Amino acid sequence: MKQVQYKVHTQQGVLLNANESSKNLSAAIRKEIQDAIFDIEFNRYPDDACQKLCEAYGNWIQVPADQILAGNGSDQHLGFLIGTFLGKEKKLLTLAPDFGMYDYYASSYEAQIVRYALDPLQAMDVDAFIRFGKQEKPQLVLFSNPNNPTGQFLNNEQIEKICKAFDCPVVIDEAYAEFAPDTCLSLLDICPNLYVTRTLSKAFGLAGARIGFLITSKTNMETIRGNHVPYSVNSLSMKAAEIVLAHATEFKPEIERIKKERDVFLSKSYTSFSFSKSEANFLLIQTPHIDKLLALFAQKGLSIRSYQQKNYCRVTIGTTQENQWIQEVLDAFEQEETHANQ
Amino acid sequence: MKQVQYKVHTQQGVLLNANESSKNLSAAIRKEIQDAIFDIEFNRYPDDACQKLCEAYGNWIQVPADQILAGNGSDQHLGFLIGTFLGKEKKLLTLAPDFGMYDYYASSYEAQIVRYALDPLQAMDVDAFIRFGKQEKPQLVLFSNPNNPTGQFLNNEQIEKICKAFDCPVVIDEAYAEFAPDTCLSLLDICPNLYVTRTLSKAFGLAGARIGFLITSKTNMETIRGNHVPYSVNSLSMKAAEIVLAHATEFKPEIERIKKERDVFLSKSYTSFSFSKSEANFLLIQTPHIDKLLALFAQKGLSIRSYQQKNYCRVTIGTTQENQWIQEVLDAFEQEETHANQ
Repeated sequence: MKQVQYKVHTQQGVLLNANESSKNLSAAIRKEIQDAIFDIEFNRYPDDACQKLCEAYGNWIQVPADQILAGNGSDQHLGFLIGTFLGKEKKLLTLAPDFGMYDYYASSYEAQIVRYALDPLQAMDVDAFIRFGKQEKPQLVLFSNPNNPTGQFLNNEQIEKICKAFDCPVVIDEAYAEFAPDTCLSLLDICPNLYVTRTLSKAFGLAGARIGFLITSKTNMETIRGNHVPYSVNSLSMKAAEIVLAHATEFKPEIERIKKERDVFLSKSYTSFSFSKSEANFLLIQTPHIDKLLALFAQKGLSIRSYQQKNYCRVTIGTTQENQWIQEVLDAFEQEETHANQ
Repeated sequence: MKQVQYKVHTQQGVLLNANESSKNLSAAIRKEIQDAIFDIEFNRYPDDACQKLCEAYGNWIQVPADQILAGNGSDQHLGFLIGTFLGKEKKLLTLAPDFGMYDYYASSYEAQIVRYALDPLQAMDVDAFIRFGKQEKPQLVLFSNPNNPTGQFLNNEQIEKICKAFDCPVVIDEAYAEFAPDTCLSLLDICPNLYVTRTLSKAFGLAGARIGFLITSKTNMETIRGNHVPYSVNSLSMKAAEIVLAHATEFKPEIERIKKERDVFLSKSYTSFSFSKSEANFLLIQTPHIDKLLALFAQKGLSIRSYQQKNYCRVTIGTTQENQWIQEVLDAFEQEETHANQ
């Protein structure tokens, strides 16, 4: 049997390890979802086309609904695209580091994976990436933008350059797009090999419902839609997501707060650790003494994301209170480290 | 790209085409689900282990929770098992006819499919199946029991014989087990290669929530659990399913009614068509003049399941009223056919 694993994160402590929203949906929205639940036809399979949901999301992102496919989280779409375009002896080009689920799905479909190495503290060299990538002759290019876990962002000029450099599908995982300066959705008209995935799990505070979207050209969608896993979005999550999207503008102040508090972190400089230039709802913190920093987060009861044999960790931007706790850990670490070096 | 398709069923008309329950959950259960929805942490990823749900289901089927894995419908588990045990140039042994999703997933993982042909009107010859299957040297055996679409049922002696004949995993898809005389779960202790899938979409009237289960030995589960797709069951469906299972005994009278009304159909004999010996919540009806029969169902507004280039169709046992309509179509067909032959 195949060995394909993805380690799930802990759900203990103050949760700053999965880039979730730290706040539940508003009571008003939850009430509206609650009211709608009673009338669901639980006994019937869901609407496989997710027509209303795709219309609601299309309305929000200003893309026609027939270019959108809803899924059980954007994870499912990543698996779907990898399964559709790759197989044994086919090659996925991605980045290192990047989201772990790409490996999971590529292994599951017996595909090879090649990774262009990023320096978390440097801007990605797109030309070098393209040179590296073209030598590898991949059948699929897939990476997150903003990158998970660095938070670094490629603008549309750079994404367009990458799309035009490859003759295979290019998938941009925009799980964190709402926290970034731009989205590459406008490139769909000029890059026929572009596929974009999105989620409601982050900025829209709906991780529990598992709703993601795949967006591509009408032509691509007509080709791949028939391949999608049927009935993968359940009726309850579908209804909850429709309601959340009807209130989409109400999420903007919270998104702005998160970006602002992120930028406050990034505006400061320290001697014992560095931030990656994040355009997402998290910070990558790199230090030669990562174990000591991880111990301080644990001591404070903050669950953050660590990585085996890496000198960095990833911390979700939380509520203002949670961010204060993060700041206290960082200040304590800075103080201990500078003392230790004296 | 791969071509992998599954045709979804229509959701127009009187729905007797997807073996759903014809009745929604009771108002009391829906109210309880509604009450629980408000307190869900929508912003957090679901409990990946589905601990409470697996305990509730384990309690119902009398199997320890650590032998159970919950999924986004049993479909997802079928894909998971096919993806885990098969790949390019590996072979799936199944039946013809059987559930179409096996083909979908096997194609997606580039596996070969070999099918042992069933006669819908004859009991399956298990020894012949084993002889055929062993020659094919499959890496996975997978079929539904009761069979979809014939409804025919293999008893535990037969399932055990099949498990012991093959040295690869044997997956029994028990989507319709609640309508059958028995389940093969008791064989888990003596057949180490047995995997069973179950669903809440049929007897428990929860097709809209997409909840399925995989059940196997503790040893097998320890090996494969780590491979499962993370966070595939959303928090809303999980909660709904926990509540439904707390009321599981309340579903028994409806299951008994369905079985009884099915057996009333099967007790009659006709000259122009035949029933397969169904132990599920549907009928397979075979006739040389299938197009005429399909036309009569359509004329009556009943949506039933037809199959390309097959001389049979599949009709879900519905409410007593719906079953009366089925009866009227069958009587009309019988009358027309016998007149035509006079």
